[in-house]
Amino acid sequence: MRFNYQVIINIIGLLLMLNGVFMLLCIPFSMYFGEGDLIAINWSGLITICVGAILWFVTKDLSNKELKKKDGYLIVTLGWVSMSCFGALPYILSGAIPNFTDAFFETISGYTTTGASILTDIESVHKGILFWRSLTQWIGGMGIIVLAVAILPILGIGGMQLFVAESPGISPDKLQPRIKETAKRLWLIYVMLTGMETVLLWVGGMTFFDALNHGLTTMATGGFSTKNASAAHFSPFIQYVMVLFMFLAGTNFTMTYFGLHGQFKKVIRNEEFRFYLGTCVLLTAITTFAISLTSDTGFEQSFRDGLFQVVSVVTTTGFVSADYTQWSSFITILFFIMLFIGASAGSTSGGVKIVRHVILLKNSILELKRQLHPSAIIPVRFNRIAVPRDITFNILAFIMIYISIFSIGSIVMASLGVDLETAMGSVATSLGNVGPGIGSVGPVDNFAHLPMFGKWFLAFLMLLGRLELFTVLMLLTPYFWRKL
Amino acid sequence: MRFNYQVIINIIGLLLMLNGVFMLLCIPFSMYFGEGDLIAINWSGLITICVGAILWFVTKDLSNKELKKKDGYLIVTLGWVSMSCFGALPYILSGAIPNFTDAFFETISGYTTTGASILTDIESVHKGILFWRSLTQWIGGMGIIVLAVAILPILGIGGMQLFVAESPGISPDKLQPRIKETAKRLWLIYVMLTGMETVLLWVGGMTFFDALNHGLTTMATGGFSTKNASAAHFSPFIQYVMVLFMFLAGTNFTMTYFGLHGQFKKVIRNEEFRFYLGTCVLLTAITTFAISLTSDTGFEQSFRDGLFQVVSVVTTTGFVSADYTQWSSFITILFFIMLFIGASAGSTSGGVKIVRHVILLKNSILELKRQLHPSAIIPVRFNRIAVPRDITFNILAFIMIYISIFSIGSIVMASLGVDLETAMGSVATSLGNVGPGIGSVGPVDNFAHLPMFGKWFLAFLMLLGRLELFTVLMLLTPYFWRKL
Repeated sequence: MRFNYQVIINIIGLLLMLNGVFMLLCIPFSMYFGEGDLIAINWSGLITICVGAILWFVTKDLSNKELKKKDGYLIVTLGWVSMSCFGALPYILSGAIPNFTDAFFETISGYTTTGASILTDIESVHKGILFWRSLTQWIGGMGIIVLAVAILPILGIGGMQLFVAESPGISPDKLQPRIKETAKRLWLIYVMLTGMETVLLWVGGMTFFDALNHGLTTMATGGFSTKNASAAHFSPFIQYVMVLFMFLAGTNFTMTYFGLHGQFKKVIRNEEFRFYLGTCVLLTAITTFAISLTSDTGFEQSFRDGLFQVVSVVTTTGFVSADYTQWSSFITILFFIMLFIGASAGSTSGGVKIVRHVILLKNSILELKRQLHPSAIIPVRFNRIAVPRDITFNILAFIMIYISIFSIGSIVMASLGVDLETAMGSVATSLGNVGPGIGSVGPVDNFAHLPMFGKWFLAFLMLLGRLELFTVLMLLTPYFWRKL
Repeated sequence: MRFNYQVIINIIGLLLMLNGVFMLLCIPFSMYFGEGDLIAINWSGLITICVGAILWFVTKDLSNKELKKKDGYLIVTLGWVSMSCFGALPYILSGAIPNFTDAFFETISGYTTTGASILTDIESVHKGILFWRSLTQWIGGMGIIVLAVAILPILGIGGMQLFVAESPGISPDKLQPRIKETAKRLWLIYVMLTGMETVLLWVGGMTFFDALNHGLTTMATGGFSTKNASAAHFSPFIQYVMVLFMFLAGTNFTMTYFGLHGQFKKVIRNEEFRFYLGTCVLLTAITTFAISLTSDTGFEQSFRDGLFQVVSVVTTTGFVSADYTQWSSFITILFFIMLFIGASAGSTSGGVKIVRHVILLKNSILELKRQLHPSAIIPVRFNRIAVPRDITFNILAFIMIYISIFSIGSIVMASLGVDLETAMGSVATSLGNVGPGIGSVGPVDNFAHLPMFGKWFLAFLMLLGRLELFTVLMLLTPYFWRKL
């Protein structure tokens, strides 16, 4: 047998049940606000749990618990797709988004923490559904499979395979010895930071509901807001709090763990963290300067607008406190290119990620040196260690595939009749899991007006980006389906 | 001593003398048309020859004829820059382009076979100057250093280093044994094809002057025309002839050599040629179809417009028979991405080149296979031979640097106040040595309106692109200037 279908179906069943339980968490908000979405949420949760339970039940007598690499890729991809199908139920059953295409788009945009929305009036959506919308991001941020590995004993065996397939950015060598403990620790930090932000936002003047929702979607680097105006709706204090937690969400969680344990030296010495911090500082400085040239608001506002937008886009969160396409073409193109950066590996952010850019940049400079000394072996060094050539090769291939998908994707979107900036912006922001793009999918626009096929296509790109290309693309190659 | 400055100055002197002799070739046209540019051309030629002769004379007693790799890079880069400075003389002295920035831009756009122009009324320029403009492209197309290697005995020793630095696309292993003969053969084919096209265009109805100019700039994949309307000025027959010769100019000259000797099997079996042909056919089909959807001209016109524009952009020539930005956003974005393709290695075209794309594409697909079988060694195969990993690595680094320069370049152009499409279009077309871009530097626009700094910056990018990045970038690294 090529794949262990039994285990695959079994685990997907478990993921769906877990997903259904999350849906039921919306009940308190639905009841408190009493806007009439309670029945839809109950039905969605029960249907999802039931389907999951059936899948789990028919395969529960596992004859072979072994998970191979290929099984891992299949579980993760199929798991995310089926979760997105069921995750759309609350939108459809409540009538908030009656159309399946739109509901699926909104759901996968949530799970992948992209944050691109087709809702034109967010504030009119019932609170229970809005909470589900934020929750999808929070689930997707740290990864439901990482959660499953942490809490379900059955995944003790093959958890490693799944972990790598869902979170390729997290270096496996650090996790190998005690994968379960690592997964638990990651989720613990995640919950704690979400709680801390919620309290700070609440203290800062948000309602508890808004504070919790923004806490969930900030830590996931998701960017769904409960307000039509996104972060622009709130006070400067709240915006600064959001900047802080967006930055933390884009930091490698291992670094956050060190930081929480007072081991600041380890954090400061980490090369990715330094480049991440440096990138944010540099881009904020440039943007602030560029804003102050074109806008006559005071320095504080220029700085805050620059800082917020830069951190929001670099961490692939996608909250908006000002429209970056309205200042100048310089700032627009700067932000367009920022869509390709991404924050740290091992964080909840999407995109290419800083570590890849740094290794790539170092390798490019060294390639010039290699031209002069063709016989010398000149490896890239990162965190004072020589990076194995296989890894450098893999990173180069990753970025090439990323750019190819971006190029082809832009052509596909343009072929649907979308204008050039919108085509490139929507593809870049979907693949990078950011949220806002340029053109008619800019920071203050939404994705509702795109053609139906375009929405499915962008949804596919979001999944591709969130699972870091290889996991999904693998399934499209003949090697994957060939017997060995 | 770090560099062999004596030889460097000596060779640059020779290149300048050669360049001056080429200028004097404009005299017949200047005299025949009698438009008053004769004195300017004479002065330009004499000044260039004199300066070259002085440089050559003071260094003629060479104590050490050895050329090291580093000397090669320095000679080629400095050689091209100084040629561009002196090549601007005819424009300045005749008053055709009084401004030095513009004249330098036009000259380097010529030598690098980019074909971007700042002239708003080409037809009002005197014929002697126009011929010089076409000649700069023809000189740059096959490379003046390749020419020098072919005809000057002094370069017999270090010619190889120069050859590689100026034409990195031509695989050195094929040339090593008899570099001089190879250089001669390349220039012979080049002259022959130019002659054949000139005759065909003349027969097709062009004046002899126009036919010769278009012959020179087609074979160089340059794209300077003597008409304001570029190729749209001429008949369909002429346009088809130009398509044929643009295609030939974008073919590896070694393949053309085989073809001329009847060895068609070798040509058909060559993987790069097949991909090159396939790319042109596929893109022409897509473009023709897309044009016929938006325009109600007949099939022949849609096909011809599609074919001409595709071949012109893929080969990085840049002639225009219709404005590709006026059909639809799909076609615009398709052509924007085409700016990054480039034709065959070992041809006169610029850009990334097909061979790099093919190896890249194959490597990306294989990387997925490598993920599944991490211990297996899976090399890329090209022309049935396993490509050494060093070369794949180099190609990946090349493309990454290319894209980084494009991204940073776009930001730089946008910071000058240019709009987004123009910024990206001008950088992509300059770096790829194509000519027309998108936005306000589209097929029917020109570069005159760009800010002065932008022109210098684009001129730098043209040189960077023509010398395939490494040769010029090398000079910007500390490794290059460090003693060894």
